[in-house]
Amino acid sequence: MAVQTQMLTNGVNVDQLVGTIEAIKAKPDLARFTFRAQTEWIGGGHSRTQIQSFYGAGQEDTSRAEPFVLEGDEPPVLLGENHGPNAVEAVLHALASCLAVGFVYNAAAQGIRIDSLAFDLEGELDLHAFLGLSDKMRPGYERIRLTYRVKSNAPREKLEELCDYVQKTSPVLDIIRNPVPVTIDLAN
Amino acid sequence: MAVQTQMLTNGVNVDQLVGTIEAIKAKPDLARFTFRAQTEWIGGGHSRTQIQSFYGAGQEDTSRAEPFVLEGDEPPVLLGENHGPNAVEAVLHALASCLAVGFVYNAAAQGIRIDSLAFDLEGELDLHAFLGLSDKMRPGYERIRLTYRVKSNAPREKLEELCDYVQKTSPVLDIIRNPVPVTIDLAN
Repeated sequence: MAVQTQMLTNGVNVDQLVGTIEAIKAKPDLARFTFRAQTEWIGGGHSRTQIQSFYGAGQEDTSRAEPFVLEGDEPPVLLGENHGPNAVEAVLHALASCLAVGFVYNAAAQGIRIDSLAFDLEGELDLHAFLGLSDKMRPGYERIRLTYRVKSNAPREKLEELCDYVQKTSPVLDIIRNPVPVTIDLAN
Repeated sequence: MAVQTQMLTNGVNVDQLVGTIEAIKAKPDLARFTFRAQTEWIGGGHSRTQIQSFYGAGQEDTSRAEPFVLEGDEPPVLLGENHGPNAVEAVLHALASCLAVGFVYNAAAQGIRIDSLAFDLEGELDLHAFLGLSDKMRPGYERIRLTYRVKSNAPREKLEELCDYVQKTSPVLDIIRNPVPVTIDLAN
């Protein structure tokens, strides 16, 4: 396999990672990405999202022959039919997925071998605001707690240092911990 | 079908919605929910999240016989293999899924019929911070833009009013627009 001639750590092509960093240093606009999603309401709490194209590294990406399809729904206690996880559960997935990439890519860049990595997440919220019963409580998570377990050739101290760095550079953690402006418009 | 004897608007059981609101007014703790996810890193940019149980309405939910499984990965340009959408794309899905529920449930509560509802989303970010090339740029989305299209028996003005209300009460929109505390700990 051609891939065996490349430098792979944690399944990450470190040569490509270094190449990407050098390319962006030379041409900063390559770092600009626009991600997209299209969502259609199906009925009740059920909706379906398709994700395929994006713009990045100076061009439209064409690597995905078919869109990814994600179902969203509520459980019966929240008036849905469990066609998929609900929206706030999807946020937990997005967060863990982002931290996994950050952890593993940065470990690879530093020559740290990761043998396994897993996350347990929980988020607490109160329905009062969503149901219009309070304008003092927030509708979203009051807090999110994440615990991770990792097997690696690096000592615990080194892994915690890595995790601190990952937390500073994680896109989804930033989106959750800090405000992102969102504009919402009704099409003409 | 028994369901036909119930008041269904937009596929939403309005009787159950009203019942939920009354139950929470009588016993506020029923509004407290804890959602959960477990994520396992597979290799490279690929991870897998399982979502099943949660606590809410005063008890552990048992409505899901099997966990939902969500794949996360990066596209090749970001050193992955497209086993799933990436983490920031999953955020767009979570946002639209949440707004769909808010829009449709609140429309049902107000007697507004929704015939169709769809969302186009895009989020812009710059990789400099993720790659450690800037500590001035943010790693997450600089902005998210969402456009929605809706067919309904309600006039445009009424739909925009509904959308304003939904924006005030949407859990995921709140999570994105406002800071959420996240604690991250390495298990012992």
